[in-house]
Amino acid sequence: MNIVIIGAGAAGLTTASNIRKYDKESQIIVFTTQKNVAYSPCAIPYVIGGHIDSFDDIIMHKPGEYMRKNIRIMTETKVVQINNDITELVYEDKDGNKQNLKYDKLVIATGGKPFAPPIPGKDLQGVFKVRTVEDGQQILNYLDNVENAVLVGGGAIGLELGTELAHRGLNVTIAEMVPQLFPRSFDKEMSDKFQEYLESKGVTVFTGSAVESINGETKVESVTIDGVERPADLVILSTGVRPQTELAESIGCKMGKFAIEVNDHMETSVENVYAVGDCVQVVDAITGDITLSPLGTTAVRQGIILAKHLTGHDISFKPVLNSTVSQIGQMEMGAVGLTQQAAEKAGIDVVVSEIDTLSRARYYPGSKPLHIKLVSKLDGTIIGCQMFGQEAVAEKVDTMSVIILQKLKCDEVVSMEFSYAPPVSMVVDPIAQAAEDCLEQLEKLSPKVTEEVSEAEDVEATPEEEVEETSEEKAEETVSEDEESFTQYLRNQGLIE
Amino acid sequence: MNIVIIGAGAAGLTTASNIRKYDKESQIIVFTTQKNVAYSPCAIPYVIGGHIDSFDDIIMHKPGEYMRKNIRIMTETKVVQINNDITELVYEDKDGNKQNLKYDKLVIATGGKPFAPPIPGKDLQGVFKVRTVEDGQQILNYLDNVENAVLVGGGAIGLELGTELAHRGLNVTIAEMVPQLFPRSFDKEMSDKFQEYLESKGVTVFTGSAVESINGETKVESVTIDGVERPADLVILSTGVRPQTELAESIGCKMGKFAIEVNDHMETSVENVYAVGDCVQVVDAITGDITLSPLGTTAVRQGIILAKHLTGHDISFKPVLNSTVSQIGQMEMGAVGLTQQAAEKAGIDVVVSEIDTLSRARYYPGSKPLHIKLVSKLDGTIIGCQMFGQEAVAEKVDTMSVIILQKLKCDEVVSMEFSYAPPVSMVVDPIAQAAEDCLEQLEKLSPKVTEEVSEAEDVEATPEEEVEETSEEKAEETVSEDEESFTQYLRNQGLIE
Repeated sequence: MNIVIIGAGAAGLTTASNIRKYDKESQIIVFTTQKNVAYSPCAIPYVIGGHIDSFDDIIMHKPGEYMRKNIRIMTETKVVQINNDITELVYEDKDGNKQNLKYDKLVIATGGKPFAPPIPGKDLQGVFKVRTVEDGQQILNYLDNVENAVLVGGGAIGLELGTELAHRGLNVTIAEMVPQLFPRSFDKEMSDKFQEYLESKGVTVFTGSAVESINGETKVESVTIDGVERPADLVILSTGVRPQTELAESIGCKMGKFAIEVNDHMETSVENVYAVGDCVQVVDAITGDITLSPLGTTAVRQGIILAKHLTGHDISFKPVLNSTVSQIGQMEMGAVGLTQQAAEKAGIDVVVSEIDTLSRARYYPGSKPLHIKLVSKLDGTIIGCQMFGQEAVAEKVDTMSVIILQKLKCDEVVSMEFSYAPPVSMVVDPIAQAAEDCLEQLEKLSPKVTEEVSEAEDVEATPEEEVEETSEEKAEETVSEDEESFTQYLRNQGLIE
Repeated sequence: MNIVIIGAGAAGLTTASNIRKYDKESQIIVFTTQKNVAYSPCAIPYVIGGHIDSFDDIIMHKPGEYMRKNIRIMTETKVVQINNDITELVYEDKDGNKQNLKYDKLVIATGGKPFAPPIPGKDLQGVFKVRTVEDGQQILNYLDNVENAVLVGGGAIGLELGTELAHRGLNVTIAEMVPQLFPRSFDKEMSDKFQEYLESKGVTVFTGSAVESINGETKVESVTIDGVERPADLVILSTGVRPQTELAESIGCKMGKFAIEVNDHMETSVENVYAVGDCVQVVDAITGDITLSPLGTTAVRQGIILAKHLTGHDISFKPVLNSTVSQIGQMEMGAVGLTQQAAEKAGIDVVVSEIDTLSRARYYPGSKPLHIKLVSKLDGTIIGCQMFGQEAVAEKVDTMSVIILQKLKCDEVVSMEFSYAPPVSMVVDPIAQAAEDCLEQLEKLSPKVTEEVSEAEDVEATPEEEVEETSEEKAEETVSEDEESFTQYLRNQGLIE
């Protein structure tokens, strides 16, 4: 069988490698317009910032390594046409030579393309997007005489890259059109903390602010933000990606609201044509709505699942929670499921809890602050979690992912088992603490909320009725009398004679 | 209402505080024979080792702080008799004064007592148990002229304390009767790694070895292990605890196989008498067998659940996985669910996977090795996990706890969402990697295993049949010909003309 994969990002290459794991026979050919493959785009900010030595470090495999697994990777080669009725495509190499190729199965893993907002001046020298290793290398090469950098877009990559550039000593400005940073994953009061942290590192942050123009003769000299011109000699468009669906569209693959429509086996509407990665749309696990999931982890999972499907294994791609984690400087932030604002927008009534806690036992040296926000439906089902701290955030987000996917309720999390040793955790896990807090919020809303909770409230009234001798006043009195002899106290309370 | 709690450990005090959260009226009185309350016994090794400055640091609250919440704590006071038919108990203070006290609800949280194996010489000066802050302080006071320390028992406390004493410069020997360290939570090949690590820190480890006698005139001078006398001036019995059930037995609370029998609301067989913590037995979540769970986290959960139950909330204590985590030096190890040996002992057929992976992206500086072992039933349900590494172990064990409690299967974990950013995690999470490896083990066993797996295997055969032009030899040939021109290659494969 001849399997052709268009795109050598996380989705395409994972598909290729995983098919080969089970199928030693088929031809597997992967096309990419890029020079490098098998690198982590998420790592680009950290190379630019110097935390990782070079771009070579983030390239995990060379095309030749795939060849040894009998996977042929065609770099700097573009698929220019697909004639699906005769299952043949036309590709063009970097020298403009065209060639036809037959296939039996076609996998479209064309990914996303950086979205460049229509800002005047966006084509000036010194304006970069940040998607590929080549983009990253260009930014790095350009940094020598740069003093003032502006990031257009305050999502994960904008914040990470902004922090890394500030770490290199640049004056950094981040401008985000939405009135908060990282709006896809966090509520405003959470991202306000990230903003404070960035500002403490010397980064200037504008939210709810458009970069109206990028100014300069041939190269960037300034940007205009909210009508004010500000110096800039480097502008990076970190405004996200848009699904790249032209090839799929050209052969009649059904398009959904946002991208290529696939089923849970990554099959498109066209027989023997599959799609994976940033170019497909997915289902939100909580709302059931169609959404996008432009995450490396999603791409990898889809690649694994498609490969298993193509080699006869029964496994499905599940709706997503879009769990996210990011590190800016010492701050680690993560989120999974719906934010409060997303829930409210989706018409879901929620309660939230926000707690300040610690990553390890309070008295253990090195214990770090951890802030958690939980979002729960009124029946107690947890549907979202956001947190930031200095350690353990990614892992706790993962625990929350399982909790949310399994539709667990606050009370189930309160009674759930967590591991404990003072050097590494708290005796009541932060997640259980947050769930307990959420449970208390829910109980305050009772009896109008859930059956259990209202029952609980009813019974809760009982002790009050039972207590005969003890008035509230007496109890209060006692509290202030630490010194009182205990025998006297007991006598007063009528407990002894 | 008069609520009396016997025992001021994690279970007793958590019960008290949580009752008070919902019930401002009732009298709450807690008895303890100890001087200190509200400390973490698990932290004692780290104070002895000097990682935590003093025992004061691990005492979280003084009795007076409870008094301000109107919780009366009677320290150094022993409940000597309970006359449950007249709901009255007799307590005795440190001066021998006895007093009677009425109660409405009685909570038995008497905990465990250190088990002292019947070793000749165990009462010599210089032999300690390690359970309370007072024990810890006595050990610390005794350390001045100690050169050779012997730990009897190689469970968590033995390993932690052994490592901490070695960290202080002592010659440390750990002797464990069972042929491996930490046998309750880990399989031998895992604990062999801990042993190697301890030995690399200069600790001498004997497994499958009994301490036959502790020798000396008035104080410890040596121990005899496997017939050989070895110098020792400090011996610590870290041989675990046994449930302390005498008071409960005295009033006819039904005893189970190991300890006090309670239902999932922590009610004993005697009306208005409850029990929580190390003195009760629990149910194993996987086997359904009766077991013990002498863990701080279990005690705390039981206290919360009892308090909620007593104040009218509907929440149940669930069967346990006994999830465990420990840190010895730089090594963090954790486990949850059944070990392979426990599963086999319980007659459960399993497959296991063991993988060596990393805590963060491979290329990110600071990424640490992580070793994971998964235990899965033949239908793919994961029932146990053990791991060790240098970070993230506790949190990953918690994720595994939810996975195991929810009875998820390997394929569900493979398709499960994990968060990713290179500085903090891997693009394919270690847990998903281990699940994939386990899935492959399962598939190797097919078709005799599960239906899905055998189906998958059947279909997997298909590609082979479909590939006509490509023999295995041809594929192999190709692999070795990296240099071959791609056009030639395609032509050879019949893909182009």
